[in-house]
Amino acid sequence: MAEQDLHRQHISGQFNQELETATAHMLEMGGVVEKQVLAAVAALLELDSGDAQAVIESDRAINAMELDIDDECFRILARRQPAASDLRLVLAIGKVIIDLERIGDESSRIARQAIALSEQAEDDLARPWTQKIATIVAEMLRGALDAFARRDAQAALALARGDEEIDANMAGAMTALADTMRSDPEAVEACITTMWVLRSLERIGDHARNIAEYVIYMVEGVDVRHAELEAVLDLLPER
Amino acid sequence: MAEQDLHRQHISGQFNQELETATAHMLEMGGVVEKQVLAAVAALLELDSGDAQAVIESDRAINAMELDIDDECFRILARRQPAASDLRLVLAIGKVIIDLERIGDESSRIARQAIALSEQAEDDLARPWTQKIATIVAEMLRGALDAFARRDAQAALALARGDEEIDANMAGAMTALADTMRSDPEAVEACITTMWVLRSLERIGDHARNIAEYVIYMVEGVDVRHAELEAVLDLLPER
Repeated sequence: MAEQDLHRQHISGQFNQELETATAHMLEMGGVVEKQVLAAVAALLELDSGDAQAVIESDRAINAMELDIDDECFRILARRQPAASDLRLVLAIGKVIIDLERIGDESSRIARQAIALSEQAEDDLARPWTQKIATIVAEMLRGALDAFARRDAQAALALARGDEEIDANMAGAMTALADTMRSDPEAVEACITTMWVLRSLERIGDHARNIAEYVIYMVEGVDVRHAELEAVLDLLPER
Repeated sequence: MAEQDLHRQHISGQFNQELETATAHMLEMGGVVEKQVLAAVAALLELDSGDAQAVIESDRAINAMELDIDDECFRILARRQPAASDLRLVLAIGKVIIDLERIGDESSRIARQAIALSEQAEDDLARPWTQKIATIVAEMLRGALDAFARRDAQAALALARGDEEIDANMAGAMTALADTMRSDPEAVEACITTMWVLRSLERIGDHARNIAEYVIYMVEGVDVRHAELEAVLDLLPER
């Protein structure tokens, strides 16, 4: 092999290594964020303001991860000038970390509501719905990150479609909370707190769906955001 | 001038033109989104479900703009391989349009609540606060887009700091709504609707602040997201 080819191969190997490292950092951040969501919901359901405070404090670490990975992506773009699927990968990482950071923000919001609820000396008045919705969105987030790791556009597409379950549970919870507020004025404060929690969980589901959409974009080069998902299904090859 | 230099100058002129065009498209999208926010709030305050429906329907156009501009940025990155401040500009545009698209989503949410409220045959029960908060966030959005257009990091920084006014108005509105719900069970539904509107307005303010932060990043190369803003102030040169 000519010396020039060896050099080129070496550069290309380094480049691939950089892409893998950035991906690994993003997935690691995803794992941390996933734990934050679960910890925030646990603190809420157990009315544990100490655990809730810990969630709020570790948001700083998530923010730092976002900035570091964003910087990593910038340096890859500036030095390696990737094209085609490599460029899509770097841009997808840059977008996913924004959603992950905002999931971290929502977890902090849930933790703050957990503290409020513990002071209102009330239980989570929509506990079964909160638990159910939290389980669904945590699974969505896990699924979206797994789909990214495995470059699995089909799995991502299935995730991008599945929010009817969240909608149904949200509707059930909201009806129950409105009924409670109408019949028990004393419970209004705690019901409002619970409503904010449910809305945050719903937003976490939205962010997980965004991540799933970026996976499809990255793998297929098809941008499914805002697209009719049925139409996209036709575009994807059978696996 | 040598022919090669002329060619280089020609390419560089084309490149600058592409950057300016992408920026213009982004600012144009910003203008459309700004109008959506104002139209959604007007529909809400006037309980005009026809105008609200129009806001919901034009969200599709905003989504299409996001995809087009994102594609434009991708092509610039792939073909021109920008570095340093040009790269920061393209990445900033790519991030700003995500926030703009989500402001469009929040406007649609407000419009949907306007329709709900018109069916609940109630006035917006926090009208003065809704108006006040809407005015503040619309100004923030306008200010953030202006700062981008003028590459004005100082103006962006001022915007990134100013959310105490929103917080104070949100607190006032929430107290009033909770009082109303406690004293008038019949008003619970409409109060909940209004709460979702206020939350959407608050989120629009968050997105406007994100845009302001991207302006600072673009102009100064300093990432102020999550940073102590006082510390960033020291970093910026006096203008």
